[in-house]
Amino acid sequence: MIKVGIVGATGYTGAELLRILCDHPQVQVTAITSRGDAGVKVAELYPGLRGRVDLAFVEPSAQALRGCDAVFFATPHCVAMETVPELLAADQVVIDLSADFRIKDAALWERWYGHAHTAPQCLADAVYALPEVNRVQIRTAQLLACPGCYPTSVQLGFLPLLEAGVIDPSSLVANAASGVSGAGRQAKIANLFTEVHDSFKAYGAGGHRHLPEIEQGLNAASRQPVQVTFVPHLVPMIRGIHATLYARLADTGADVQALFERRYADEPFVDVLPAGSHPETRSVKGTNVCRLAVHRPQGRDTVVVLSAIDNLSKGAAGQAVQAMNIRFGFAETLGLTQPALMP
Amino acid sequence: MIKVGIVGATGYTGAELLRILCDHPQVQVTAITSRGDAGVKVAELYPGLRGRVDLAFVEPSAQALRGCDAVFFATPHCVAMETVPELLAADQVVIDLSADFRIKDAALWERWYGHAHTAPQCLADAVYALPEVNRVQIRTAQLLACPGCYPTSVQLGFLPLLEAGVIDPSSLVANAASGVSGAGRQAKIANLFTEVHDSFKAYGAGGHRHLPEIEQGLNAASRQPVQVTFVPHLVPMIRGIHATLYARLADTGADVQALFERRYADEPFVDVLPAGSHPETRSVKGTNVCRLAVHRPQGRDTVVVLSAIDNLSKGAAGQAVQAMNIRFGFAETLGLTQPALMP
Amino acid sequence: MIKVGIVGATGYTGAELLRILCDHPQVQVTAITSRGDAGVKVAELYPGLRGRVDLAFVEPSAQALRGCDAVFFATPHCVAMETVPELLAADQVVIDLSADFRIKDAALWERWYGHAHTAPQCLADAVYALPEVNRVQIRTAQLLACPGCYPTSVQLGFLPLLEAGVIDPSSLVANAASGVSGAGRQAKIANLFTEVHDSFKAYGAGGHRHLPEIEQGLNAASRQPVQVTFVPHLVPMIRGIHATLYARLADTGADVQALFERRYADEPFVDVLPAGSHPETRSVKGTNVCRLAVHRPQGRDTVVVLSAIDNLSKGAAGQAVQAMNIRFGFAETLGLTQPALMP
Amino acid sequence: MIKVGIVGATGYTGAELLRILCDHPQVQVTAITSRGDAGVKVAELYPGLRGRVDLAFVEPSAQALRGCDAVFFATPHCVAMETVPELLAADQVVIDLSADFRIKDAALWERWYGHAHTAPQCLADAVYALPEVNRVQIRTAQLLACPGCYPTSVQLGFLPLLEAGVIDPSSLVANAASGVSGAGRQAKIANLFTEVHDSFKAYGAGGHRHLPEIEQGLNAASRQPVQVTFVPHLVPMIRGIHATLYARLADTGADVQALFERRYADEPFVDVLPAGSHPETRSVKGTNVCRLAVHRPQGRDTVVVLSAIDNLSKGAAGQAVQAMNIRFGFAETLGLTQPALMP
Repeated sequence: MIKVGIVGATGYTGAELLRILCDHPQVQVTAITSRGDAGVKVAELYPGLRGRVDLAFVEPSAQALRGCDAVFFATPHCVAMETVPELLAADQVVIDLSADFRIKDAALWERWYGHAHTAPQCLADAVYALPEVNRVQIRTAQLLACPGCYPTSVQLGFLPLLEAGVIDPSSLVANAASGVSGAGRQAKIANLFTEVHDSFKAYGAGGHRHLPEIEQGLNAASRQPVQVTFVPHLVPMIRGIHATLYARLADTGADVQALFERRYADEPFVDVLPAGSHPETRSVKGTNVCRLAVHRPQGRDTVVVLSAIDNLSKGAAGQAVQAMNIRFGFAETLGLTQPALMP
Repeated sequence: MIKVGIVGATGYTGAELLRILCDHPQVQVTAITSRGDAGVKVAELYPGLRGRVDLAFVEPSAQALRGCDAVFFATPHCVAMETVPELLAADQVVIDLSADFRIKDAALWERWYGHAHTAPQCLADAVYALPEVNRVQIRTAQLLACPGCYPTSVQLGFLPLLEAGVIDPSSLVANAASGVSGAGRQAKIANLFTEVHDSFKAYGAGGHRHLPEIEQGLNAASRQPVQVTFVPHLVPMIRGIHATLYARLADTGADVQALFERRYADEPFVDVLPAGSHPETRSVKGTNVCRLAVHRPQGRDTVVVLSAIDNLSKGAAGQAVQAMNIRFGFAETLGLTQPALMP
Repeated sequence: MIKVGIVGATGYTGAELLRILCDHPQVQVTAITSRGDAGVKVAELYPGLRGRVDLAFVEPSAQALRGCDAVFFATPHCVAMETVPELLAADQVVIDLSADFRIKDAALWERWYGHAHTAPQCLADAVYALPEVNRVQIRTAQLLACPGCYPTSVQLGFLPLLEAGVIDPSSLVANAASGVSGAGRQAKIANLFTEVHDSFKAYGAGGHRHLPEIEQGLNAASRQPVQVTFVPHLVPMIRGIHATLYARLADTGADVQALFERRYADEPFVDVLPAGSHPETRSVKGTNVCRLAVHRPQGRDTVVVLSAIDNLSKGAAGQAVQAMNIRFGFAETLGLTQPALMP
Repeated sequence: MIKVGIVGATGYTGAELLRILCDHPQVQVTAITSRGDAGVKVAELYPGLRGRVDLAFVEPSAQALRGCDAVFFATPHCVAMETVPELLAADQVVIDLSADFRIKDAALWERWYGHAHTAPQCLADAVYALPEVNRVQIRTAQLLACPGCYPTSVQLGFLPLLEAGVIDPSSLVANAASGVSGAGRQAKIANLFTEVHDSFKAYGAGGHRHLPEIEQGLNAASRQPVQVTFVPHLVPMIRGIHATLYARLADTGADVQALFERRYADEPFVDVLPAGSHPETRSVKGTNVCRLAVHRPQGRDTVVVLSAIDNLSKGAAGQAVQAMNIRFGFAETLGLTQPALMP
């Protein structure tokens, strides 16, 4: 049994952490912080947690988090990097769900995020916590940088092809679509029900912050430099990310279905569907599973990968708990086995 | 550990039973039947259960269900009553989620359902499995008739007022609204996405089969005869029932908030919200909880009760598992504690 | 051809006015104002109006509205009452969609709206612009107070019964449900897609500002004092209001279907459906029509009326244009005949 | 004023034709047919048309359509081709919204549609009724083959680039997403609200019937052979198609924004948005407009085009009426000018 704290628990990823951790047999959540809602009971903001989580938010501080074995950051970027060095110095494990420690190159990070990075000294030791790639490193890391939601779905879809070297990495297309919870719990007109319901659009076509993270991860898996055109879209649904990935086959004889099945045979949270399938986001709603399918339309040279996750779970809180399980030596699936809510 | 079978598991309440039971530590699902989909794997119909439920549907028969300690019926009406006598004779416990054994008066049942009742001899011993009313009887029953979804939400909302005798029972109004999953998994134009999305309507205003069940339950709680005007509505959401109940106070001095809190103080699945609250259906999504709030607008003589449940869980599968837990001596909340999926 | 101005055109009712008026053959919109978005082109905020409305917002002022024959206020309460006296003095017709001049009793208004009324001298001459009740007065009025959305749906549903004196007016129930656009275009967490989608709830059960307006209107139609219990609900849809109305029949021999058909026989925008019907909000989406159906469940003494409108059209902008048509002597249906967008 | 008939008017494109034509000043709809619903009033199926369309469906036959100047087919494939030759022989104009006459190569059509083509002799004279390409031919055609919904959005997006020869046509990607009304008004479990709401998925990744139509159209515009990878997706919304198109620039110096603006400068129904924009499907809801935006992410060599239409209007009924207007010498925009319903 470990003690954990959550910084920024008023947002949706924070709430999802609470939903998962309140049923986790090896975890006791002892502190949750919020700058804006200190003093408020969690259950007032999230009535779904009434009777399950009795904590109230407290002001964020290292003091408030003292005694926690692990501290999750479910904050916007630029928050974690202010506090993390202090927590690391106190030998606490940090599991950061924000973007602060995902990009190894601080200058690149600063270009995309428009802020100076205040803890660049932590970047080298931070482990990018995608278990399907860095499971071994996660076991001993003190600072876990959890992948973004889009990067998780896109990387898991391209990895088998790039690692096997069967596609041309120079012109990948990642067409992705997200539910609205990806925009967080902020009072913005653009995210009102009346603005997004019964409609569909692309956004950030000119450039999205998840692009450098995606390319960093895919470059590590590829023998040749990777270039991705990434266009995100907004779907009128609450949860879910679906990525549709396109690549030109370099090796037109490759058995891509077998490649995917082999690559993920031992992964507890990656499910390769039978040939011809189309994963639905609802099939992973509330779960830590990534479902993948691979197609080769008309037998031509373009391979299409379909990748579905729950952006708040495998794309955020679930994957963070998976990393925590690995880091603390629990069964990797502990607390993460409940099936999708479907219908 | 008990062995259970599910008859009619291709429908939404059957799928919800599987979702709950596959994580239940005292249950092994050993047989699931379907007339139309025999031979098909559950996970093909419900990909959310891939990796969690490995069973395939089999043809329904007493033979297929042999060895089951309990058999759930998640079938349309008129199915359970054909097989139940045989199962009872074999000393199996039957937990019927359909309407077949809910109404004690076979003639009344036949009038509303338009069919002859083929097992009226079982009605007397059938226990109406609303734990908040019949917990003691459930413990020893062999045939459990699980309440309908609307009746659950309406009865839990009116019971404290009727039992205390503080309202006029002769002109109750139950205005209820359900998500579309209440209509089941049937190929009907009326339930297409394109027909119900972004719209709202009443239906069955002239008469709905849940009315006699509601009045039977409320009459049992009331000293005087009850008359309910019940109008159901269709909400463009998947899960959830919300009932808005109106009654004239006979005792205008009654402290209705205290009345509700007292009545449900020991109930694990009924949550009386603080005065002034409005329960949202999403706060019970995927859970067995009924959340209630009580209002007295403008301090006038009409009391308003708001009641929210998940129609597939507390309104069907969850409540059935709760009854099973009681019947087999498990902790009443076993397998039913996961918090709502919210957002 | 008249010239009109719109004050507060950035909100949803303002945008709906523009959508209707840009196709109205007798209207030229010459000025639209917005405090926050002065200088911005309408089509930037509402890309659906690109190519149809070329105006940009200007700062609100009597100056900006000079030359307009009619000025619409699509503003929150407390805005119109500041400017209206000046416009009336300049002999301009004011069509106010806000709540400022709906309630005849200034003290009652102040109690519900929590502000001092700054133009109580205008209340006596203001005409409550429900054409089905006050058509004659609208023809010559200078200040038209357009009804609220809930009050429109509720009054049109109860009027035939109260005017005919066939129900007991002392315990009416108005259970109403609205799409989210009724909450306006404001950056509030409570109205985010993620907060209201796939869920349903009541709100304002303790008291809603539309109640005194409803009771004022119904009292005028009834021989005896009216008392309404009014509970609004939020439906995860963009447009639409559905009211389900309950009343005890005083005259149990009344032919309520005939009553409704007779009352609205000559009304161009009230459509009484055949007996046994259930109006859907989608059937009035984008139209100025109110569809009504009347039921008498189980032949008992409670009559149920179902009333559906588009809250932004018959509940706001459409009804305002209908009143404008009447006031300026145009055909009452001019610009308001397009059928519902369905599916 | 012309007389028109509609074959198969019970489906959604038929209903959309009725919605548009009932307000068209030069059209009188004199016959609507339906095999399944003969005798039923339109307004019973589509209550939104109550009071606007008084017709009842009749059995389909050449007899029923006699006297019509134009006959629309809003039928599944394989229906129009049975009757069209007879209508052409009677000198009636046929406007076919189905797929029967879109593909010039009968063998190719048969391969994708799995049926023998029974009127191949009509293919040569059929005009593919995309006004932005074939306006001149439409003016004198007797058989108009209206484009499919996906092909309309995809072709309008790629045309300027292919006609100018600035992209490599050999590896185009068309990632498209449609609202559920594209699946028609058929009783299928897969299209139930409960199956598609709050979820997202690709479908037909292995091959979709709109592919040969897309490639036929693009090949006509391109100097070199075109190859498209086309993956459609299902969005939980009623109306709308959004295509996200990817192409490699052959001429990296091309000013693609200027190219699009020039190409569509005189097109009444194609709206090129300012650079940096993202069209939303709701901005074209209920309209005949296609909104386009073009991006070049990170200044790299891949150009991205975003294309939004209403699948039932510009993707079907609206475009058919546009073609009818051209064919019969009416103003091209007649009856098609109402702005989008937004919000």
